[in-house]
This record gives sequence, structure tokens and C-alpha cells, in this order.
Amino acid sequence: MRLSTIWPTKPFLIAFCMLWSGLMFIPYAEAQSLSQDSVWEKEFLGMPNADSLSFHMKKLSARPHHVGSAYDRENAEWLRALLSSYGFDTRIESFDVLFPAPVERALELVEPVRYTASLREPVVPDDPTSAQQDEQLPSYNAYSIDGDVSAPLVYVNFGIPDDYEELERLGISVKGCIVIARYGRSWRGIKPKVAAEHGAVGCIIYSDPHEDGFFEGDVYPQGAWRPREGVQRGSVMDMPVYPGDPLTPGVGATRSARRIPLGECPTLTKIPVLPVSYGDAQPFLQALAVPVAPDDWRGALPITYHIGPGPARVHLKVKCSWDTKTINDVIARIPGKVYPDEWVVRGNHHDAWVNGAEDPISGLVALLEEARAFGSLLREGWRPKRTIVYCAWDGEEEGLLGSTEWSEQHADDLRRHAVAYINSDGNGRGYIGMAGTHTLEHFMNKVAEEIHDPETGLSVLERSRLRRISDAGNPEDRKQLREKKAVPLGALGSGSDYTAFIDHLGIASLNLGYGGEDGGGIYHSIYDDYSWYKRFSDTSFAYGRLLAQTAGLSVLRLADADILPFTFQNFSATVSRYVDEVEKLLKEKRDEIVERNAQIAEGVFTAISDPKHLQVPPHVSEVPPYLNFAPLENALPVLKKASERYDQAVGAGFHDPGALPKINRLLMESQLSMTDRDGLPGRPWFRNLIYAPGLYTGYGVKTLPGVREAIEQKHWAEAETQIARLAAQLTRMASVIDSTTGEIEALHPELKR
Amino acid sequence: MRLSTIWPTKPFLIAFCMLWSGLMFIPYAEAQSLSQDSVWEKEFLGMPNADSLSFHMKKLSARPHHVGSAYDRENAEWLRALLSSYGFDTRIESFDVLFPAPVERALELVEPVRYTASLREPVVPDDPTSAQQDEQLPSYNAYSIDGDVSAPLVYVNFGIPDDYEELERLGISVKGCIVIARYGRSWRGIKPKVAAEHGAVGCIIYSDPHEDGFFEGDVYPQGAWRPREGVQRGSVMDMPVYPGDPLTPGVGATRSARRIPLGECPTLTKIPVLPVSYGDAQPFLQALAVPVAPDDWRGALPITYHIGPGPARVHLKVKCSWDTKTINDVIARIPGKVYPDEWVVRGNHHDAWVNGAEDPISGLVALLEEARAFGSLLREGWRPKRTIVYCAWDGEEEGLLGSTEWSEQHADDLRRHAVAYINSDGNGRGYIGMAGTHTLEHFMNKVAEEIHDPETGLSVLERSRLRRISDAGNPEDRKQLREKKAVPLGALGSGSDYTAFIDHLGIASLNLGYGGEDGGGIYHSIYDDYSWYKRFSDTSFAYGRLLAQTAGLSVLRLADADILPFTFQNFSATVSRYVDEVEKLLKEKRDEIVERNAQIAEGVFTAISDPKHLQVPPHVSEVPPYLNFAPLENALPVLKKASERYDQAVGAGFHDPGALPKINRLLMESQLSMTDRDGLPGRPWFRNLIYAPGLYTGYGVKTLPGVREAIEQKHWAEAETQIARLAAQLTRMASVIDSTTGEIEALHPELKR
Repeated sequence: MRLSTIWPTKPFLIAFCMLWSGLMFIPYAEAQSLSQDSVWEKEFLGMPNADSLSFHMKKLSARPHHVGSAYDRENAEWLRALLSSYGFDTRIESFDVLFPAPVERALELVEPVRYTASLREPVVPDDPTSAQQDEQLPSYNAYSIDGDVSAPLVYVNFGIPDDYEELERLGISVKGCIVIARYGRSWRGIKPKVAAEHGAVGCIIYSDPHEDGFFEGDVYPQGAWRPREGVQRGSVMDMPVYPGDPLTPGVGATRSARRIPLGECPTLTKIPVLPVSYGDAQPFLQALAVPVAPDDWRGALPITYHIGPGPARVHLKVKCSWDTKTINDVIARIPGKVYPDEWVVRGNHHDAWVNGAEDPISGLVALLEEARAFGSLLREGWRPKRTIVYCAWDGEEEGLLGSTEWSEQHADDLRRHAVAYINSDGNGRGYIGMAGTHTLEHFMNKVAEEIHDPETGLSVLERSRLRRISDAGNPEDRKQLREKKAVPLGALGSGSDYTAFIDHLGIASLNLGYGGEDGGGIYHSIYDDYSWYKRFSDTSFAYGRLLAQTAGLSVLRLADADILPFTFQNFSATVSRYVDEVEKLLKEKRDEIVERNAQIAEGVFTAISDPKHLQVPPHVSEVPPYLNFAPLENALPVLKKASERYDQAVGAGFHDPGALPKINRLLMESQLSMTDRDGLPGRPWFRNLIYAPGLYTGYGVKTLPGVREAIEQKHWAEAETQIARLAAQLTRMASVIDSTTGEIEALHPELKR
Repeated sequence: MRLSTIWPTKPFLIAFCMLWSGLMFIPYAEAQSLSQDSVWEKEFLGMPNADSLSFHMKKLSARPHHVGSAYDRENAEWLRALLSSYGFDTRIESFDVLFPAPVERALELVEPVRYTASLREPVVPDDPTSAQQDEQLPSYNAYSIDGDVSAPLVYVNFGIPDDYEELERLGISVKGCIVIARYGRSWRGIKPKVAAEHGAVGCIIYSDPHEDGFFEGDVYPQGAWRPREGVQRGSVMDMPVYPGDPLTPGVGATRSARRIPLGECPTLTKIPVLPVSYGDAQPFLQALAVPVAPDDWRGALPITYHIGPGPARVHLKVKCSWDTKTINDVIARIPGKVYPDEWVVRGNHHDAWVNGAEDPISGLVALLEEARAFGSLLREGWRPKRTIVYCAWDGEEEGLLGSTEWSEQHADDLRRHAVAYINSDGNGRGYIGMAGTHTLEHFMNKVAEEIHDPETGLSVLERSRLRRISDAGNPEDRKQLREKKAVPLGALGSGSDYTAFIDHLGIASLNLGYGGEDGGGIYHSIYDDYSWYKRFSDTSFAYGRLLAQTAGLSVLRLADADILPFTFQNFSATVSRYVDEVEKLLKEKRDEIVERNAQIAEGVFTAISDPKHLQVPPHVSEVPPYLNFAPLENALPVLKKASERYDQAVGAGFHDPGALPKINRLLMESQLSMTDRDGLPGRPWFRNLIYAPGLYTGYGVKTLPGVREAIEQKHWAEAETQIARLAAQLTRMASVIDSTTGEIEALHPELKR
């Protein structure tokens, strides 16, 4: 859905840094047949070409190509032909999915003055594709239910749970109201979900210029940022419950698949939702009266931000076609020469909201350059040891449709054969962003050491490490970065096509992309096009080359490694840190409630209440109990020991080729062992017990999600159950690792204890 | 100059809280003849009257009354008559001061488009005094030099030293440019001072709506906040060098005083300065181009904030009359019955920039209610033991003229006779703000215990304590507030009439006022008038009554106490905390430089530099040396011991009346012993070694200023000198305290060791 799931903005950077401590790198046998492999690697790295990236972007983004559009289908066919021409065995796999397109949209202020929102993005002169209005999908939020409501308006800031706590303190209810929320701080689908949970009957989401407009920089076409009338489209499907076709959870949406009735879909919104520009939002916000919104609720519009409700009264109407459309995934293979049943899967989506030059084409064209390079290597006689599968997904924007349906359809095969999945979703200028399963952390660091930043000449790993030293919030983080000379992987939440692979199937996954040096405000608007990208993003495609090098080298090494390059000490250290975090989370919750209860008792809230600005004093809350973390504390050393033992054994060097298939099979199993068939509480589709998108963050990751979210939601009994379950799962994983080590040690009698 | 020097905004609150830790309260004999005194106190507290406050405000703010205006003189005469009618021996003391009034003001954008700033505040319907345009002093910055310059424009954020460091990193120089800075983060006079130090040739200061306009709340007349065309006038005299008449530093500006030539005045600005509204500022800021200003440089105007320089080019002209004007301080006395040579001085200024209902009249009318109440008590037979001196100062706005000249003129008498000075400068609704010499901390806590908040019924002390618990940034601060049941005094910087008393003479001082529940944006504009105050501030004058009660009770207790109510443990604990702060400051500076040097060495700055957004890498800096804090560390226990011994001795109870004059004389000396005749480095007028306004903050206090500023400015040798000097001064103070204790112990043989 966007590059910025990889490299968005400072908050992400900070979170990224916070997610890390205690990285451990151990020496391990990089690639057993280094000399020949390194020749191919070197040749591969020289192949990605800027002109080709630019040419392909121009072609693929030449017309709007959303699901069901003519150009979407045309692109899929073109991609099939192109990948075939590179020597891939290519086919289109199609699914039939529920796809609502807007039929009627209306948003009017009816009191105290009248204003009708334009809901239109104007053509920009000198931007030819912005004028393709006949083919553009109008601005809307996909999977909003239909609705026609009139109600008082309330401003709810970002519309996240914290904001509703603030509203409660101010004595304001949104029950029976239409809320207006600004984009940001959560994935957009969270906003109508939380609003509906609080009784709202409609939801408007707008791009505030503070986060996405003139506050950030000069607006398009003068600059890169969102103009007054630019709108962010986007899905509001409840993807943290399950992504993909709402009618076919858990199974591929083939023509014959069993479908649940539309009225029973849990992932549609409960209230109608519509996105608007800040130009359209301003008259609505301006019509709200008392009270003045708190400091950090105020955006950059030139108005005093008020909350309401009223006197503003709003009429909102959304009506969609609820058609079934065919989506077309392009799937291209190079069969493996040695281990054809071990697959390395690489993907990027090809569909867009409109022209989508940045999202997703800037990532897709890098993928195509990798494929072109592999085609050349094939012609020179190279054959990968493992099967390589290149995928161009359709329907990502609406809800990860193409990748999810394909993963569900091929779930058994993928769990049996897929070694890893490598995703990208757009690209820009700047630093490497790399997130994924931490058993691949050491591997990715080694890859990133080989890629050189065109601006500084440094390896992209080193540049990233130095950036992190500069950004580090405390001396301890800096010390770690200096001592370990390594860069941590971020943890994957959701928001792109890796979701089904890592969260549903448990396949080790990576998400890669460059960014951080250019911002912009064209996300999911008609202005995300070639004209914009060539003026304001990776204008020379130097970083497009880098992404092709980075992801391609990752594929190459995964495909050609004798022993799959998973290592476990980084993983176990990372999980150990996550355990510290959830323990700290509980302690902080307890301290916070104890303190608040104390303040209630000593009269702080009545003392500071201002009769002219009413605040509702909070109620005394139950103090969180102490939880039994012992099972986890006991499991961690078991995992740690197994990890150390494996990493030491694999480092011992050459292994009997005859033993490799079994070792590699066990390694693949070790990854799958992060999942549990029953899934997470209330959302069984999500089976990974280490990584998941948050129920109330949407894209944002919750690591150890069962435990963490139970604590966040104050489900104490469930938290204890989840602790025990996670501990058991980590112990199981340790035992798979031990079995793998056993196989290696059998080849090295000197290692045996 | 403004109430908000007492109770301004959150940053102040936070700083206030941070300034505090380790308060110590010891029991001490509150008032020896409690029964009779308490009868007078009770009676006094019942007297301040809301109608009278309102009536007096309306009268005093009925017309513009700046220095030299007819109504300023009329008010002085009226105050003299009023205070006389209350039974005070009242006179007007006049001084002849340099007073520049604007003759010509011009501000034009000349490139890339033309715009002429209006420099006018429009009349507001239903606000009668806003229409008194013939009498209003135009918007300007007093003591700006004359100038007529044309130059490229540069936006410098708040124009404080940190901002120029950022400009340096961005490779931007202001040399030969006109800078535009927003109000805030420093006293306004700092902005042209720092700009000139960096080579700027002119300075525009504007009120950004982020700090002072629609971002904060609805604007006047709909709401309380600064309208688009509202301008903040104000002095830009370099008051941290010395306040008062620029021509007569250190001596009263009597007709015959020796004056320095105008051309040699060090406290005039070096470049012309003009304040403008945000309406006028917007076209100028909008005309700036690259680069985009950093996040925290951006205000609330609906534009992308750029820095420049250029293409905006500006013409700025300022020309003032440089006349001598007469200022009229109203001085009213009630002679003391027992100790007529010990004076309790209370003041608030009467001049304003325009009508000044809030600043200063809301404080002055409270002072008048105190005086009226004392008049009634006099008629009932009460006579204060000490002489009470009530002062209504003139010329405060331009540079603390009236209070400074009077203090300089009567310096010897004041150092000999003044027990304490109690200031106010405006008032509002909310919490008590109390700052001052920490030897009065315990005293003020006791006073604030007696005053009851009309909204909550709590004592104002308790309400303030609970607010601080709510606002406290960390558990340690909350623990202190809970255990000690006390509220710390803030430290005094500058910005109102206490400056000459505490900083030049060393007389124990307090600054009092209520606020924090209402904001507003009429400061130093034509809209600070009765209409505004009655609609948006302390509308019922309930807090006006409270200020009269608080300041009046402080005067009453100081006047009637047998032993002056100074205590020393709070003071020594506070100074000890300040010493910790300056040691920490040095350590932080060292850590910061060591880290930055390390980052330079490892290539962080070259790695993160973005070729499209140039940043200049910093140079390697000299690492601050370790300084010898031993003299201070040795002096602190001496002071602590003397303080404990005194507080214990004075707590022992009744003292021989015959011994009191000597004891009290020594107590007064103990306060004066905070000063040193040589003053602070480079600014000898500032003689207090514990408290001073910062050279680069203006109003903001720098405690232990000699040491702290030497460290901040990296003058290491001077820092060591100042440490030794401060240590010697604290030791001298301890010895004065010991002498006092000796006198008391002589009366209590059981206390002697």
C-alpha cells in the first residue's frame, strides 16, 4: 500500500530504533561455494539499469490501473509477457473478489451554514495523467458500508482509542454523531472501527496539512506535498481480523470457493466512511464550536480547532456497487536445479489506486530489473539451486487481495516449500529500510554490506547504522550500534503483501525499500504519477537500482545457499527484548493506575477542574494484577541455548550435501513453528505468535501480540493464558532448532557434547 | 510588564516545577503576638471588594496612559489623591527619562512582490476604548535605534542563540539581512540583540498565531485571543545589562543627574526593530523560498515556512523622537509605630502601553484594595509596627523606569531600611503564582495557606500543590510535593519592578499573582482593555480580591512580625539544588561535545548529509574541562549548618523585645549578603550572585548566574573564578546568619552549644 510502511516518517524511525537492542551477530558460513556464487553475484549487481526502471514506470503508470480496470488487466498481461521474455515460466492466476466501487458519494454541511464538499481532485497543468479523469477511481474508502446519515459533527483528532479517552475526560460523547478524524497515528481502517465502537453513525477522514500538506513543504505542483484538494483514498477493511477477499476468509477466492453472505462479513466497516481533502474539510471543522481542542489535537489549518458536537450538522452518503471483480496475479518461476521443491518467493503488487507511480510501481520496476537480470544470468548458464518465484500481485490496495488469496489457495504448498518471502511496495531516495523475521537479521545485514549508496559511497548498511547513531535517543542505543556494527531489522506489522506469508503461514519474510530523504504528499491520490516521481522522488532511479540489487541479491543468496541462512541468536535476543517490553508495559500500566487512583483520592482532579472548562474526573480503576511471567522466563533460556548451539554448529563449516535436504527442511520447520493453528484470540487467521499487526493500530506491529494486546486491553486471565501458550511455542521452536543442530552435529563428531 | 511573568504558559509551569526539589520546612514562631494580629488579619482579609476592583480598573484604563501621556499624569494624580484619602502619606516622585516615541515607521516587501505592512490595529465594534486612536501609542519596540535599511529577509524562528546554531548547520548566514523572528521563547529584546551579533541589519518581530493567535483559541472579539491585526508592543532595551533610564545607569534620573551621551548608551539596540501582527507578517514569510524551515520552526500561518534569505527583500524604517519625558511614581507611606526605620515595600506599575486593563491595572487595583483596607484598619486603631510603603510605578513598560530610578535614587536608604519588596503586575483567574527570594519560601507558604480559592474552596496553597502533583513530570517530584505539603517559590528573573530591588540592591523580594485558567492574546495591544478583561479574564474580580488578600496579608505579616520571617533551610536547600544543576550542566555539555566529536570522527555527518538538502557538518569542538567545584561543595555545608542552627534558634520562641532591632538588622543584612558590589561579569549593575535574568533569556532567570552563564558561554576560567566568588559569598552569608543566631542564642542559654 505504500513505501512508507518501510520508510515513512520520524515516528516510524523512532519506533524502529526503539524496537531494537541486544542484537547478536555470530560468525556463520556465508556461502559454501563462495567463489562461483560470488561471480554470479557480482554480475547480477551490475545489471539493474536506471533507464529501464524509468521506462517501465512510465509504461505501468501511464493510466489508472485499479482492480477491475482495463489497464490493470493490460498491465498484468504485459507483465506476463515481459517475465516470460526473461525466461520465467509465467502465468496469471486469477481470483474473483468482492470489490465495492463508489456509485454515490455526498458530503454536505447543513448547519449552521451550507457547504457541499467537492470530493474532486483537480487536474494539474503539465501533469498529463492527472487529466485522465474518466478512468480515475473517485476518492473513497473501500469496504465502507453503504449509508445515508445526517448528524451533528464531532472532531476526534486521529480517532484512535487515546483520543476517545480524552473525549471522555471532556465529557463529550460521539454517540449518534458523525466524526471527523485526521489521517495519521493509526492505519485508516482503525478510525471508523473505533468510532463505531463509540456509537458514531458516520466517519469522515481528512488529510490535515500538518501531517500531509503545506505544513510539511511546498505543495504540488510547486513542491512535492499534498495540495489543498488532494485526497487519500484507501481501504478501511478490518484487516487486523483478516485481510483478503471478505467473502472467502482462509481460502482462495476461486470461482467455486464457498463464500459467506455479504451481510455477515466481519471486515466491512460498521458505519459509512468517506475521505476528503483539507480543502473540503476546512468548512466542516470551522463550523464546530466549543470546546477548543487540546493543543496536540490542533492541525495546520488556519482556524481554531474545536471539538463540538455541533452546531455543525452533516449529511454523509456513501453507496457502492458491490460487484465481484477478477484480480490477476502474475506468477513467474525459475525452477531450481538442486532443490526444486524449495521456493524463494519475491513479490510487489502491480495494482494502484490511480496511476500509482510511487505506490507500487517504483517497487515493481525494481522487481522487474531483478527478473531481467536473472534472465540474463540464465542465458549465461546460471541455474538457481532453489526454485525462484516472482510475483506481481493484484488488488493489494483494497486489502492485500491478490497475495492473500494466492497464499490461501496455495497454503499447503507454501508451508511445505516456501523458504522465505521477500516483499517490496514502492521505493524512494535515502536509507535502506529493512524489516522482517529476525532469523534473517544477520542474513540481511550481510546483504546490505554489499550494496553501496550512490550518494555517499558507503555500504547501505553502514549508512543506515550511522543514521541510527545520529538519531539514537540514548547513549545505550548508540553503544550497541557502535559495538555490534549492525543494523536491526524492524518487526513486520501489516500494510503490504508479506502479511499472509508471515502472519498466516509463518513463512520467514522480509520487506525492503529505500527512503527517508524525500517526502511528499501524493499518497493514494491522482498525483502519484510519473510526472511527480520524476520531479520529486528518486529522480535518477539510482535507488531503484539499489532496491533491485538489494532484493535481488537476497533472492540469489537464499536460492543458492547450501544451508538456509537462518540464524537464531538474533531472534532469541529480540524475543527476549519483547518479553522485557511486555513486562514493562504491565508495570507501567500498574504504576499509572496506582498514581491516578492516588490523585483521585487526594482530590487532584477536583482541585484542578476549571468551572469554565469542564473536565470529567476519572473513576478509580482496578489496579492490574501481577501476572505469572515465569513460563516465558523459563522458555527464553531454552530458546537462547538452542540458538547458540545451532549457530555454533552451522559455523563449523562444510556439511555433507546428502544431509542438507533434511537440515533445510528442519530449518523451514523452525520458521513455521512461530505459528499456532488456533491463531490469535478473536482472530484465528493470524497464526504467528511473534508478529502481528495491532488490532487497534492496523499497520503497526504488535510483537508477542497475544500477550501484549491482552495486557493493553486489560484481559488479565487471557494474558496469563497467552503467556503460557507463547512459552510452549518458543519451547517447541527450540526443540526444532535442537533437532536441526543434531543433524549437523552428526556430521561433525567433534561438536558433540 | 505582564502577569505572565508570573503565570504565563505551560513551559513556565514546567520550568517552575523543575526548579524545585528538596524543599525544607521547619517549624518557626509564626507571629509572636498571634491573638491580636490574627484579629487584624481576619478583618483585613474581609475587606477587598470586587465592585471596587472593577470600578478602579474602569477608571484607570479608561484612556491610553503610556509614559508622557496626559492620562498617565492624570492617573498618577488620581492615585495620589486616592492613597492620601486612605490615610497614606502620599507624594509623587518624578524622574526625567529618555523616552523614544515613534515618529516614522515603515515596513515594505519590495521583492519578489510588493506589500506594505499596515502597522495598524483596527477598531473593534463594541469595544469603546479600541477606538481611542488619537491617544494610542502606535505599535513599536521602544529603544530600537533609528534606522532605514533595505535587505534580503531571513526567517530565524524565535531568534534565540539555538536558532542561529541551526542556521549555521544549514549553511545560512543573516549577515547583511533583515531577520524576521516570532515572539516567544525569550524576552523580545534578546531577538534584535542576537540578530545584530550575527550581522543582521534589521529585525522584525511578529506574533505567530501558533503562540499567540487563532491556534490557541477564538480570536478577539469572538474570543480572548490575538486577532489577525493585533500587535505586541514592547521594550527592546538591553535590560539584562541594566534596566531603567539608559542615560543614567546606577543613579536616579533626577533633573540634575549626570547623563551619558545618547550615542554611548549600551542598552539601545544595535539595529532597528519593529513588531508586527501576524496579518502583516504573512506576506513577508510567504515570500521566502528555500529551504523549508525545520519542523519546530513552523508556526500556524497557512503557509509553508521557509528560511530564505530571499527572494523576499524588505525595506524597514524606524524613526523615533528621542525626547526626555517626566515619569511619576506615586509613593505612599504608613509610618511604622515600633520600627519606623524598617520598611515593607509593595508595588505595581500604573503606566501601560495603551489602556492596559490586564497589564498592569488588574494588579494595581488589587494593590489599591490592600491600601483601602489598611486605611480602614488605621481608622480602627491599627498601626503597623514597621513602615509600609505602597508604590505605583510609572514607566515600567519601557524598561522598569519608575522602579529602577526610584531604587537607584534611594539605594542607600533602601539597603538600610527595606525589609522586603512585594511586587505584582497584573492578575487573572486560576492558581497562585509566587516567586521570590527563597528565604521567604516558608513565609509565603504560610500566607498562601490562609487564602481560599473561590472556585474550589481549597487554600490557594493546597490547590497549587495539587496542580503541581498533576503536572509533575516524574515520581520523585510528586513524592516531594506529597511529603512536604509545600509549594516551592519560583526564582525571579526580570520583566517587572522587583528587578532593581532583588538584583541591584539585594532586598528580599516576592512577585505574586493569579492565573493559569484563562489565556488570551491582547498583551501590549490596544485590545488589553476593560471590555476584554470583563468578558474573558477574572470577570467577577474574585481573583482580584484574592491577590489583594494574598499580597496584603504578606505585607501585614512582614510589617507586624517581631522577628522578620526569613528562614534559611529552604534557601540553602534551593542553592544546593542550583549547584547540582550547574554541575550537571557542565557534565551534559561535556557529554554532548564528546559525543558530537565522536560522530564527526566516525563519519556520521557526512553519511547522513542529503545532497539535495545541504547541511554543514559541525566542527570538532574543544571538550569542556573539569572545573573545580570544591569551593562551592565546601561552602554548602557551612551554609546548611548555619541555616539549621538559625531556624532551630528562632523556633525556640519569645525573644527579648530589646534584642529584636539588632536581630532584625542582621536578618536584613543576611539578605543583602547575596549581593556583591562588583556585580556580575560584564554587567556590574546586577549584583545578586544567586538570581539574575539571563543575558540571553531576558526575563528568564539564571540562578547562580555568574557560574551558570560562564559555563553556558564556555568561559572556563571565568567559571572557576565565579565558583570561588560564589563560595566566598555563601560563606559570608553563613557568617551573617551565624551572628544572628548568636544574638538569639544569647537570649536562650539552653540553646547554646
